[in-house]
Amino acid sequence: MAKEFILFETNFWKVILLDEQSYLGRCVVVLKRDCGELSGLTTNEAADFHENIVNKLETTLKKTFNATMFNWSCLMNDAYKEKNPKPQVHWHFRPRYNHPVQIANNKFIDLDFANHYNNSSERKKFVSEEILEQIFNEIKNNL
Amino acid sequence: MAKEFILFETNFWKVILLDEQSYLGRCVVVLKRDCGELSGLTTNEAADFHENIVNKLETTLKKTFNATMFNWSCLMNDAYKEKNPKPQVHWHFRPRYNHPVQIANNKFIDLDFANHYNNSSERKKFVSEEILEQIFNEIKNNL
Repeated sequence: MAKEFILFETNFWKVILLDEQSYLGRCVVVLKRDCGELSGLTTNEAADFHENIVNKLETTLKKTFNATMFNWSCLMNDAYKEKNPKPQVHWHFRPRYNHPVQIANNKFIDLDFANHYNNSSERKKFVSEEILEQIFNEIKNNL
Repeated sequence: MAKEFILFETNFWKVILLDEQSYLGRCVVVLKRDCGELSGLTTNEAADFHENIVNKLETTLKKTFNATMFNWSCLMNDAYKEKNPKPQVHWHFRPRYNHPVQIANNKFIDLDFANHYNNSSERKKFVSEEILEQIFNEIKNNL
C-alpha cells in the first residue's frame, strides 16, 4: 500500500495505522530515531510514550469503537532473521473487543477475545484503502 | 509451586521469575497496586518501569546468560475470561537467545529465535524448584 496512514506524531514517536486490521484499530508505534532495544530509550522518550502514546491511543480507541481492552507488545524478533540485525524499537498496539463493530459493509469481530492475539497468516485481515481511510478518519476525529 | 521467586522489587513493581522457563529468564513484572490498564499508570509508575525494571532486567540478563534480545508484552487477556473481569497490569518479559545455554544438566534452547514467542502448551518448559533456584541465584548475583 502506497500511502502511510499516520494517525499522529509526538517529538519521539510516530503512530501508523496498519492495513492489517484483524484487531480493529491495530497500529504500530515507531521510535523516530535509531534505537535497537527498549532499554536504549531515554527518560524523555519513555515518558512521552506513556503520556502521549499509551494514554492517547487507549482513550481514543475506547471513544471511537468502544474497545474493551488493549494488547501492547515490543518484540522485534523479525529483525534477527538478518545476518546483521538492525532492530528498531517499535510497539504493536492491538485493541481488543468483546463485541462486533460494523464499519460500512465490514463487520469486525475479535475472534480471539480473552485469549492471546492470533498472528497466524490465516487470521490476518487486510482491508482495502477505502476501508482503512474510513477507520483512520473515525479514529482521527477522536484524537 | 509454593515458593515465589521474587528477583527484586521497586516502589511500584515486583519482578517474579516464573517456573515456566521456555525462554530462559522469563519473568512477570506486576504492578503492586490495583490498576487494570496501562493508561492507568501514574507518571511515576511508568518512569520507574522504564528506569528500574526494563533497564535492569535487560542489562542483567545480558550479563548472566548473554541474552541476545528481549520480548516485552502487556496483554491481560486471561482476566477477560471472567464474567466480571479484574485485570491487573503486569508485563511478560521473555529473554531470547541465538545460542543454547547450559544450566546444570539442562540445555535451554530458544527454538523460536527470530520468530514470535510460542506460547502453546507443547512449548512450555516447567523446571524443577532446584533448577529454578539455580537460575534465580545466577540472575540475582548480577542484579
